[in-house]
Amino acid sequence: MALVEQAGIELTTFGWVPPFARGQVRDLRVRWALEEIGADYCVRTVGPIPPGYEREQPFCQVPAYREGDLQLFESGAIVQHIGEKDERLLPSDPAARARAIQWTYAALNSVEPWVMGYAALDAFYPGEEWARLRKPSAREELVKRLGRVAEWLGGSEWLEGDRFTIGDLMMVAVLRIMGDERGPVAEYPTLDAYRARGLARPAFQRALADQIALYSDKPKGEVA
Amino acid sequence: MALVEQAGIELTTFGWVPPFARGQVRDLRVRWALEEIGADYCVRTVGPIPPGYEREQPFCQVPAYREGDLQLFESGAIVQHIGEKDERLLPSDPAARARAIQWTYAALNSVEPWVMGYAALDAFYPGEEWARLRKPSAREELVKRLGRVAEWLGGSEWLEGDRFTIGDLMMVAVLRIMGDERGPVAEYPTLDAYRARGLARPAFQRALADQIALYSDKPKGEVA
Repeated sequence: MALVEQAGIELTTFGWVPPFARGQVRDLRVRWALEEIGADYCVRTVGPIPPGYEREQPFCQVPAYREGDLQLFESGAIVQHIGEKDERLLPSDPAARARAIQWTYAALNSVEPWVMGYAALDAFYPGEEWARLRKPSAREELVKRLGRVAEWLGGSEWLEGDRFTIGDLMMVAVLRIMGDERGPVAEYPTLDAYRARGLARPAFQRALADQIALYSDKPKGEVA
Repeated sequence: MALVEQAGIELTTFGWVPPFARGQVRDLRVRWALEEIGADYCVRTVGPIPPGYEREQPFCQVPAYREGDLQLFESGAIVQHIGEKDERLLPSDPAARARAIQWTYAALNSVEPWVMGYAALDAFYPGEEWARLRKPSAREELVKRLGRVAEWLGGSEWLEGDRFTIGDLMMVAVLRIMGDERGPVAEYPTLDAYRARGLARPAFQRALADQIALYSDKPKGEVA
């Protein structure tokens, strides 16, 4: 349902990804933000990478985003840009706004590298000796990081109190990288509940269903 | 020199760090941004961590930033906040602004994790067998990432053409993590020149001198 008319928002993602990546491709974060504000958008799929795509997305990844003349890449920047359209994602009060943006950066720079540093060992380096040796300490470092976020949250609903923002969107997306098993997130009940609260939002559920539907006519595989 | 009066900006950093970290502590990025716009600020040092500091900086790291009632952590968020005070760091044109912010996120989420994933092997895990085994592939992945940034830059002065922004500030700071030796950055002459161009800015040089001066009365060591 489009509550906000945003003529010409185009989100670029891959038309095919391996089964393990379905529901984890980074365009999900952008879809989630767009669904939260009820914005209309269309999806353009790429794959193989078209000539010249590196001028849209220098790392030849997804998502890429277009809105009129504006082209953006990097999920954090796109989500912030969408947040600036709507108070429901990014408060207009300057201090509250800066705090929400701060958590978006924190999710991407102070948490995601530790999540990926652990999750990548099995996902991208299975069977590598260094990955096997590294796993215990990578888990320990991640658990410590997550403990900081859990401690910050305490009994709060969201990172800055009772108001969901782009900071929560990004933090929950990062905490979800480890999948349904949750891994170290499950060691902190408050953090685990926070993650579940975010994922229960109807906008997230719509975004996830839409991303997964993209692959429905593609070669079969697990799509949880 | 204070061209902008910003009553009450307080930057928190550590009063002591080991010699290898001097000139690399993340408050440098904030100092650089403040120097670019000529803002007045005072420095508060901590160490040991004071009670309650985790409510200022949930990860008990630095920098932390205070401006009146606003408290912020996370260097990316603080630099963006400072950028919003001054066109010289963050253009007011909406598209140019979004593009500059995009590069700040890209530096911190699409480049820094690869830089740190490589640099940390020697800095934090010397003598570890997994780090020794991981080093060649970590270097290769980093070189590939840096190649993408070098290709984007081409012959441009800055990431978005002839105008320095917070995106350049953050990207250059990230490229500098590997120190004077430069490591894989040196494999790309355009990227290496870009890095040098950023570091030659008087505001960066002032910020670096000020950070290093902080440790001048502390136990001796290399402070390059």
